[in-house]
Amino acid sequence: MTIARPGRLVLVPNALDLGTDHEVDLRDVLPQAVIAQAAALGHWVAESAKTTRAFLKRVDRLAPLARPLQQVQISELPRPPKGGAAGKGSLAAVDLSPLLAPALAGHDVGLLSEAGLPAVADPGAALVQAAHELGLRVEPMAGPSALLLALAASGLNGQSFAFVGYLPVEPAARAARVRELEALSRRAHQTQIAIETPYRNDALLGALIEHLQPATRLAVACGLTLPGERCESRRVQAWRASRGPALGGRLPAVFCWLAG
Amino acid sequence: MTIARPGRLVLVPNALDLGTDHEVDLRDVLPQAVIAQAAALGHWVAESAKTTRAFLKRVDRLAPLARPLQQVQISELPRPPKGGAAGKGSLAAVDLSPLLAPALAGHDVGLLSEAGLPAVADPGAALVQAAHELGLRVEPMAGPSALLLALAASGLNGQSFAFVGYLPVEPAARAARVRELEALSRRAHQTQIAIETPYRNDALLGALIEHLQPATRLAVACGLTLPGERCESRRVQAWRASRGPALGGRLPAVFCWLAG
Repeated sequence: MTIARPGRLVLVPNALDLGTDHEVDLRDVLPQAVIAQAAALGHWVAESAKTTRAFLKRVDRLAPLARPLQQVQISELPRPPKGGAAGKGSLAAVDLSPLLAPALAGHDVGLLSEAGLPAVADPGAALVQAAHELGLRVEPMAGPSALLLALAASGLNGQSFAFVGYLPVEPAARAARVRELEALSRRAHQTQIAIETPYRNDALLGALIEHLQPATRLAVACGLTLPGERCESRRVQAWRASRGPALGGRLPAVFCWLAG
Repeated sequence: MTIARPGRLVLVPNALDLGTDHEVDLRDVLPQAVIAQAAALGHWVAESAKTTRAFLKRVDRLAPLARPLQQVQISELPRPPKGGAAGKGSLAAVDLSPLLAPALAGHDVGLLSEAGLPAVADPGAALVQAAHELGLRVEPMAGPSALLLALAASGLNGQSFAFVGYLPVEPAARAARVRELEALSRRAHQTQIAIETPYRNDALLGALIEHLQPATRLAVACGLTLPGERCESRRVQAWRASRGPALGGRLPAVFCWLAG
């Protein structure tokens, strides 16, 4: 009996157009090597098999899949249990090693996110941790991250920054969190980065403009890599003077601020 | 007299192989659209004109430059003044608007980093801020970020993380900073991300293994996107039991940790 050499867990980036009306050309956002690698993989783990099939259909138009889509094996990550502490990466208690069985049998396995880099701002990190625990090789591939594209486009401090995920929805709790993060930003000269569900984009922008100090710099990047892309960065006092058109509820947005 | 429509500031990502013995194929790390855009730009701002010319020669082999390299205008960012507070984005006090004169005259201007995304972990953010102040459109293009590739490959919390730059070199100050950041990581369940000059990689790894708590998870990604790439992630107690071969002093590394 021969023991198969284990496969790798390949972290495959996705485009940033999920749920929008635009489908970007994958060649605008993914390196050619990523498209070729995606076409070659026969085993995937993802949040959604449906999204993964849609991605692979787009890949197939640029680089023919190594096997028919029906024969590509796609396993879904379990949904994080409800009610856990926010941001606790709540798949931590779930045994994900069965999802990596194909890698132990010698096949490379792709991990795909709904948008951007897998395991960043999504539940995929638990699978990567399971891969390390099994001694599998983990290989990240270059691709877009809305968080870092927004940070780069903000002109705010890119030498010290924190991604804080979602802010509370309840107005008083949100205002308190905005002030807490602004104090942290001032102390550490650290840019704070947050995201929001698109239909709440304008509510969050309004809250930031209302509760941050006038001299704090606030940037909003909306629809990154898409035709309607907007990147605006100015002090809160200038946002108060001219907020500009609404962000709308369709395009994903990233919010960055730095205490002035 | 007609007034030219202003050009954009285009944030062009670079490969991650600067200063290493390997030259990666740009198609492995940059989208085709980025290579095409870089070939089209006639005006650049960068930390180093030499690095920019080397990049454009690589681009030219994949997509012929729109004008001869000798006619491409490359302006260097001024060096941040010495002695300022660390991490304070110390170009803030310098007027960078002259570097954007070509954009005001109607030409798109590219901003290139020595490695990865411009304005992230480099001094380019001040130029982006100047562009916003001049009312120029800022367009970030998708590409590799060693910080986020390392985070993705670490399997640590990707829903809350902070990039803290460089740690102090002096051993006692470094140990204190490691403990401070570990306490922060525990409180906010936040992954901490740091970088180091390659020749100090093994010293930093040693300090992290020594000063972090045994249950803290520590990941090191070294030579990302390069042939010698290594991504290892385990608890500090396991690092103590088997640290493995030295990182060496040639390849850039990224360090991530999360209190357990």
